[in-house]
Amino acid sequence: MTADDRPGPAPAAVTLRPVGTVVSTRRDPVDDGWDAVDASIVLSPPFGPEALAGLDQFSHLEVVYLFDRVDPAAVHTGSRRPRANPAWPEVGIFAQRAKDRPNRLGTTVCRLVAVRGVRIEVGGLDAIDGTPVLDLKPYLEEFGPRGPVVQPSWSRQLMARYW
Amino acid sequence: MTADDRPGPAPAAVTLRPVGTVVSTRRDPVDDGWDAVDASIVLSPPFGPEALAGLDQFSHLEVVYLFDRVDPAAVHTGSRRPRANPAWPEVGIFAQRAKDRPNRLGTTVCRLVAVRGVRIEVGGLDAIDGTPVLDLKPYLEEFGPRGPVVQPSWSRQLMARYW
Repeated sequence: MTADDRPGPAPAAVTLRPVGTVVSTRRDPVDDGWDAVDASIVLSPPFGPEALAGLDQFSHLEVVYLFDRVDPAAVHTGSRRPRANPAWPEVGIFAQRAKDRPNRLGTTVCRLVAVRGVRIEVGGLDAIDGTPVLDLKPYLEEFGPRGPVVQPSWSRQLMARYW
Repeated sequence: MTADDRPGPAPAAVTLRPVGTVVSTRRDPVDDGWDAVDASIVLSPPFGPEALAGLDQFSHLEVVYLFDRVDPAAVHTGSRRPRANPAWPEVGIFAQRAKDRPNRLGTTVCRLVAVRGVRIEVGGLDAIDGTPVLDLKPYLEEFGPRGPVVQPSWSRQLMARYW
Protein backbone atom coordinates (compact mmCIF):
# COMPACT_ATOMS: atom_id res chain seq x y z
CA MET A 1 0.00 0.00 0.00
CA THR A 2 1.52 3.31 -1.08
CA ALA A 3 0.97 6.65 0.64
CA ASP A 4 -1.61 7.59 -2.02
CA ASP A 5 -3.58 4.40 -1.41
CA ARG A 6 -3.84 5.14 2.29
CA PRO A 7 -7.47 5.98 3.11
CA GLY A 8 -8.43 9.18 4.87
CA PRO A 9 -10.12 9.31 8.26
CA ALA A 10 -13.83 8.46 8.59
CA PRO A 11 -15.46 11.79 9.51
CA ALA A 12 -18.67 11.84 11.55
CA ALA A 13 -22.07 11.56 9.88
CA VAL A 14 -24.13 14.75 9.61
CA THR A 15 -27.87 15.27 9.71
CA LEU A 16 -29.36 17.83 7.31
CA ARG A 17 -32.87 19.26 7.26
CA PRO A 18 -34.33 20.19 3.86
CA VAL A 19 -34.97 23.94 3.52
CA GLY A 20 -37.68 23.46 0.89
CA THR A 21 -39.22 21.25 -1.76
CA VAL A 22 -39.37 21.17 -5.57
CA VAL A 23 -42.80 21.54 -7.20
CA SER A 24 -42.48 20.39 -10.81
CA THR A 25 -44.51 19.34 -13.82
CA ARG A 26 -42.24 16.27 -14.04
CA ARG A 27 -43.15 13.52 -11.59
CA ASP A 28 -41.05 10.61 -12.82
CA PRO A 29 -37.29 10.38 -13.22
CA VAL A 30 -36.52 10.82 -16.94
CA ASP A 31 -32.96 11.36 -18.12
CA ASP A 32 -33.33 14.11 -20.71
CA GLY A 33 -35.27 17.19 -21.86
CA TRP A 34 -35.18 19.15 -18.59
CA ASP A 35 -35.47 22.62 -20.15
CA ALA A 36 -39.09 21.87 -21.07
CA VAL A 37 -39.97 21.40 -17.38
CA ASP A 38 -41.50 24.21 -15.30
CA ALA A 39 -40.62 24.11 -11.64
CA SER A 40 -40.78 26.06 -8.41
CA ILE A 41 -38.97 25.72 -5.11
CA VAL A 42 -41.09 26.36 -2.02
CA LEU A 43 -39.34 27.07 1.28
CA SER A 44 -40.37 25.20 4.42
CA PRO A 45 -40.59 26.70 7.92
CA PRO A 46 -38.78 28.37 9.62
CA PHE A 47 -37.78 30.18 6.42
CA GLY A 48 -39.78 33.23 5.38
CA PRO A 49 -39.61 35.62 2.40
CA GLU A 50 -36.73 37.54 4.07
CA ALA A 51 -34.42 34.53 3.44
CA LEU A 52 -34.86 35.27 -0.30
CA ALA A 53 -34.45 39.08 -0.10
CA GLY A 54 -32.39 40.36 -3.03
CA LEU A 55 -32.30 36.99 -4.80
CA ASP A 56 -34.22 38.54 -7.70
CA GLN A 57 -31.09 40.57 -8.56
CA PHE A 58 -29.48 37.36 -9.86
CA SER A 59 -30.22 35.64 -13.18
CA HIS A 60 -29.26 32.14 -11.98
CA LEU A 61 -29.58 30.06 -8.85
CA GLU A 62 -27.58 27.07 -7.67
CA VAL A 63 -29.76 24.36 -6.11
CA VAL A 64 -28.41 21.57 -3.89
CA TYR A 65 -30.94 18.77 -3.57
CA LEU A 66 -31.42 15.15 -2.57
CA PHE A 67 -32.22 12.39 -5.10
CA ASP A 68 -34.64 11.01 -2.52
CA ARG A 69 -36.33 8.53 -4.89
CA VAL A 70 -33.03 6.67 -5.37
CA ASP A 71 -32.98 3.55 -3.18
CA PRO A 72 -29.90 3.83 -0.92
CA ALA A 73 -29.25 0.14 -1.63
CA ALA A 74 -28.88 1.02 -5.35
CA VAL A 75 -26.08 3.54 -4.80
CA HIS A 76 -22.83 2.81 -6.67
CA THR A 77 -19.51 3.24 -4.86
CA GLY A 78 -17.06 2.00 -7.49
CA SER A 79 -16.98 2.38 -11.30
CA ARG A 80 -19.44 1.65 -14.12
CA ARG A 81 -20.41 2.83 -17.61
CA PRO A 82 -22.59 6.00 -17.50
CA ARG A 83 -26.19 5.08 -18.36
CA ALA A 84 -24.89 1.51 -18.93
CA ASN A 85 -23.93 2.63 -22.45
CA PRO A 86 -21.45 0.11 -23.90
CA ALA A 87 -20.00 2.85 -26.14
CA TRP A 88 -18.79 4.81 -23.11
CA PRO A 89 -15.90 3.93 -20.78
CA GLU A 90 -16.25 2.53 -17.28
CA VAL A 91 -15.60 5.48 -14.96
CA GLY A 92 -15.73 6.01 -11.22
CA ILE A 93 -18.90 7.24 -9.55
CA PHE A 94 -17.05 10.50 -8.72
CA ALA A 95 -16.12 10.92 -12.41
CA GLN A 96 -19.80 10.99 -13.45
CA ARG A 97 -22.91 12.85 -12.25
CA ALA A 98 -25.27 9.83 -12.06
CA LYS A 99 -28.03 10.14 -9.45
CA ASP A 100 -27.42 6.77 -7.78
CA ARG A 101 -24.31 8.13 -6.05
CA PRO A 102 -23.01 8.26 -2.47
CA ASN A 103 -25.12 10.70 -0.41
CA ARG A 104 -27.49 11.10 -3.42
CA LEU A 105 -26.74 14.83 -3.80
CA GLY A 106 -27.57 16.81 -6.92
CA THR A 107 -26.31 20.31 -7.73
CA THR A 108 -27.69 22.33 -10.61
CA VAL A 109 -27.48 25.90 -11.87
CA CYS A 110 -30.96 26.90 -13.07
CA ARG A 111 -32.55 30.09 -14.39
CA LEU A 112 -34.29 32.28 -11.88
CA VAL A 113 -37.66 33.32 -13.31
CA ALA A 114 -39.36 35.02 -10.33
CA VAL A 115 -39.38 35.19 -6.54
CA ARG A 116 -42.84 35.40 -4.94
CA GLY A 117 -43.03 35.15 -1.14
CA VAL A 118 -41.42 31.82 -0.20
CA ARG A 119 -41.76 30.47 -3.76
CA ILE A 120 -39.03 30.68 -6.41
CA GLU A 121 -40.01 29.98 -10.02
CA VAL A 122 -37.13 28.47 -11.97
CA GLY A 123 -36.31 27.13 -15.42
CA GLY A 124 -34.04 24.19 -16.24
CA LEU A 125 -34.05 22.45 -12.87
CA ASP A 126 -33.38 18.71 -13.28
CA ALA A 127 -35.22 17.58 -10.13
CA ILE A 128 -38.64 15.92 -10.04
CA ASP A 129 -41.73 16.95 -8.09
CA GLY A 130 -41.33 16.53 -4.34
CA THR A 131 -37.52 16.57 -4.32
CA PRO A 132 -36.12 17.87 -1.00
CA VAL A 133 -33.93 20.98 -1.39
CA LEU A 134 -30.93 21.24 0.96
CA ASP A 135 -29.50 24.63 -0.03
CA LEU A 136 -29.94 27.54 -2.43
CA LYS A 137 -27.09 29.82 -3.48
CA PRO A 138 -26.99 32.70 -5.94
CA TYR A 139 -24.85 31.89 -8.98
CA LEU A 140 -21.82 34.17 -9.17
CA GLU A 141 -19.81 34.20 -12.39
CA GLU A 142 -16.67 34.16 -10.23
CA PHE A 143 -17.68 30.71 -8.94
CA GLY A 144 -17.54 29.25 -12.43
CA PRO A 145 -14.47 27.30 -13.59
CA ARG A 146 -11.24 29.31 -13.75
CA GLY A 147 -9.20 28.41 -16.85
CA PRO A 148 -10.24 26.38 -19.90
CA VAL A 149 -12.58 23.44 -19.33
CA VAL A 150 -11.53 20.00 -20.60
CA GLN A 151 -13.87 17.01 -20.47
CA PRO A 152 -14.01 13.62 -22.25
CA SER A 153 -16.15 13.14 -25.36
CA TRP A 154 -18.55 10.67 -23.64
CA SER A 155 -19.68 13.44 -21.29
CA ARG A 156 -20.52 15.75 -24.22
CA GLN A 157 -22.45 12.97 -25.94
CA LEU A 158 -24.38 12.26 -22.72
CA MET A 159 -25.33 15.93 -22.36
CA ALA A 160 -26.48 16.38 -25.99
CA ARG A 161 -30.19 15.95 -25.16
CA TYR A 162 -30.06 16.59 -21.42
CA TRP A 163 -31.47 20.13 -21.40
CA MET B 1 -51.68 35.03 3.74
CA THR B 2 -51.45 34.70 -0.05
CA ALA B 3 -50.76 31.46 -1.91
CA ASP B 4 -47.10 32.49 -2.32
CA ASP B 5 -46.67 33.02 1.42
CA ARG B 6 -47.91 29.51 2.16
CA PRO B 7 -44.98 27.43 3.42
CA GLY B 8 -44.05 24.13 1.82
CA PRO B 9 -44.15 20.78 3.63
CA ALA B 10 -41.44 19.89 6.15
CA PRO B 11 -39.53 17.03 4.47
CA ALA B 12 -37.76 14.42 6.58
CA ALA B 13 -34.21 14.98 7.81
CA VAL B 14 -31.45 13.06 6.04
CA THR B 15 -28.18 11.65 7.37
CA LEU B 16 -25.12 11.94 5.15
CA ARG B 17 -21.73 10.30 5.56
CA PRO B 18 -18.69 12.21 4.33
CA VAL B 19 -16.92 10.48 1.43
CA GLY B 20 -13.58 12.09 2.19
CA THR B 21 -11.67 14.93 3.83
CA VAL B 22 -9.82 18.05 2.68
CA VAL B 23 -6.08 18.23 3.42
CA SER B 24 -5.02 21.86 3.00
CA THR B 25 -2.22 24.28 3.80
CA ARG B 26 -4.90 26.61 5.20
CA ARG B 27 -6.04 25.67 8.71
CA ASP B 28 -8.06 28.74 9.71
CA PRO B 29 -11.10 30.25 8.02
CA VAL B 30 -9.90 33.29 6.08
CA ASP B 31 -12.22 35.02 3.61
CA ASP B 32 -9.92 35.69 0.64
CA GLY B 33 -6.90 34.56 -1.38
CA TRP B 34 -7.93 30.94 -1.95
CA ASP B 35 -5.99 30.42 -5.19
CA ALA B 36 -2.72 30.52 -3.19
CA VAL B 37 -3.83 27.48 -1.17
CA ASP B 38 -2.68 23.95 -2.10
CA ALA B 39 -5.14 21.24 -1.18
CA SER B 40 -5.95 17.58 -1.64
CA ILE B 41 -9.08 15.55 -1.09
CA VAL B 42 -8.54 12.08 0.40
CA LEU B 43 -11.34 9.52 0.11
CA SER B 44 -12.45 7.58 3.18
CA PRO B 45 -13.45 3.89 3.22
CA PRO B 46 -15.28 2.18 1.56
CA PHE B 47 -14.13 4.21 -1.44
CA GLY B 48 -11.10 2.99 -3.38
CA PRO B 49 -9.20 4.31 -6.41
CA GLU B 50 -11.84 2.80 -8.75
CA ALA B 51 -14.35 5.47 -7.56
CA LEU B 52 -12.05 8.05 -9.22
CA ALA B 53 -11.40 6.12 -12.47
CA GLY B 54 -11.42 8.49 -15.45
CA LEU B 55 -11.64 11.63 -13.31
CA ASP B 56 -8.24 12.70 -14.67
CA GLN B 57 -9.90 13.29 -18.07
CA PHE B 58 -11.58 16.39 -16.61
CA SER B 59 -9.92 19.76 -15.96
CA HIS B 60 -12.27 20.78 -13.14
CA LEU B 61 -14.02 19.13 -10.22
CA GLU B 62 -17.11 20.21 -8.28
CA VAL B 63 -16.75 19.65 -4.54
CA VAL B 64 -19.71 19.58 -2.13
CA TYR B 65 -18.50 19.99 1.44
CA LEU B 66 -19.59 20.81 4.98
CA PHE B 67 -18.55 24.02 6.77
CA ASP B 68 -18.08 21.90 9.89
CA ARG B 69 -16.28 24.59 11.91
CA VAL B 70 -19.37 26.83 11.76
CA ASP B 71 -21.29 26.58 15.04
CA PRO B 72 -24.85 25.47 14.15
CA ALA B 73 -26.10 28.06 16.66
CA ALA B 74 -24.46 30.79 14.52
CA VAL B 75 -26.36 29.88 11.34
CA HIS B 76 -28.43 32.70 9.83
CA THR B 77 -31.93 31.96 8.55
CA GLY B 78 -33.15 35.44 7.56
CA SER B 79 -31.35 38.38 5.94
CA ARG B 80 -28.17 40.34 6.72
CA ARG B 81 -25.43 42.37 5.02
CA PRO B 82 -22.75 40.10 3.45
CA ARG B 83 -19.58 40.24 5.58
CA ALA B 84 -21.43 42.82 7.72
CA ASN B 85 -20.29 45.43 5.18
CA PRO B 86 -22.43 48.60 5.62
CA ALA B 87 -21.84 49.49 1.95
CA TRP B 88 -23.70 46.38 0.81
CA PRO B 89 -27.45 45.71 0.97
CA GLU B 90 -29.16 43.44 3.47
CA VAL B 91 -29.94 40.27 1.52
CA GLY B 92 -31.42 36.87 2.40
CA ILE B 93 -29.17 34.00 3.41
CA PHE B 94 -30.17 32.23 0.15
CA ALA B 95 -29.14 35.32 -1.86
CA GLN B 96 -25.56 35.10 -0.57
CA ARG B 97 -22.97 32.32 -0.27
CA ALA B 98 -21.92 32.97 3.36
CA LYS B 99 -20.70 29.88 5.24
CA ASP B 100 -22.94 30.35 8.30
CA ARG B 101 -25.97 29.14 6.33
CA PRO B 102 -28.68 26.50 6.83
CA ASN B 103 -27.15 23.01 6.46
CA ARG B 104 -23.66 24.61 6.24
CA LEU B 105 -23.06 23.30 2.69
CA GLY B 106 -20.36 24.66 0.39
CA THR B 107 -20.06 23.95 -3.33
CA THR B 108 -17.00 24.94 -5.33
CA VAL B 109 -15.59 24.27 -8.78
CA CYS B 110 -11.82 23.78 -8.41
CA ARG B 111 -8.98 22.84 -10.75
CA LEU B 112 -8.05 19.19 -10.91
CA VAL B 113 -4.25 18.89 -10.68
CA ALA B 114 -3.72 15.13 -10.30
CA VAL B 115 -5.41 11.93 -9.16
CA ARG B 116 -3.17 9.53 -7.19
CA GLY B 117 -4.83 6.49 -5.65
CA VAL B 118 -7.56 7.81 -3.34
CA ARG B 119 -6.02 11.30 -3.26
CA ILE B 120 -7.02 14.15 -5.58
CA GLU B 121 -4.75 17.19 -5.75
CA VAL B 122 -6.70 20.34 -6.49
CA GLY B 123 -6.18 24.08 -6.92
CA GLY B 124 -8.53 26.84 -5.82
CA LEU B 125 -10.58 24.92 -3.25
CA ASP B 126 -12.02 27.31 -0.62
CA ALA B 127 -12.23 24.76 2.20
CA ILE B 128 -9.87 24.52 5.16
CA ASP B 129 -7.87 21.54 6.41
CA GLY B 130 -10.06 18.77 7.81
CA THR B 131 -13.27 19.83 6.03
CA PRO B 132 -15.60 16.84 5.43
CA VAL B 133 -16.39 16.26 1.74
CA LEU B 134 -19.91 15.05 0.93
CA ASP B 135 -19.70 14.60 -2.85
CA LEU B 136 -17.40 15.00 -5.84
CA LYS B 137 -18.66 15.56 -9.37
CA PRO B 138 -16.81 16.18 -12.62
CA TYR B 139 -17.43 19.68 -13.94
CA LEU B 140 -19.25 19.57 -17.29
CA GLU B 141 -19.45 22.77 -19.31
CA GLU B 142 -23.10 21.91 -20.01
CA PHE B 143 -23.81 22.26 -16.26
CA GLY B 144 -22.74 25.89 -16.29
CA PRO B 145 -25.34 28.68 -16.48
CA ARG B 146 -27.42 28.74 -19.68
CA GLY B 147 -27.97 32.29 -20.92
CA PRO B 148 -26.26 35.51 -19.79
CA VAL B 149 -25.38 35.84 -16.10
CA VAL B 150 -26.67 38.87 -14.19
CA GLN B 151 -25.61 39.58 -10.61
CA PRO B 152 -25.62 42.66 -8.35
CA SER B 153 -22.52 44.85 -8.01
CA TRP B 154 -22.00 43.99 -4.31
CA SER B 155 -21.35 40.37 -5.27
CA ARG B 156 -18.65 41.40 -7.77
CA GLN B 157 -17.02 43.63 -5.17
CA LEU B 158 -17.07 40.80 -2.63
CA MET B 159 -15.39 38.42 -5.09
CA ALA B 160 -12.63 40.86 -6.14
CA ARG B 161 -10.02 39.35 -3.80
CA TYR B 162 -11.65 35.98 -3.15
CA TRP B 163 -9.48 33.83 -5.39
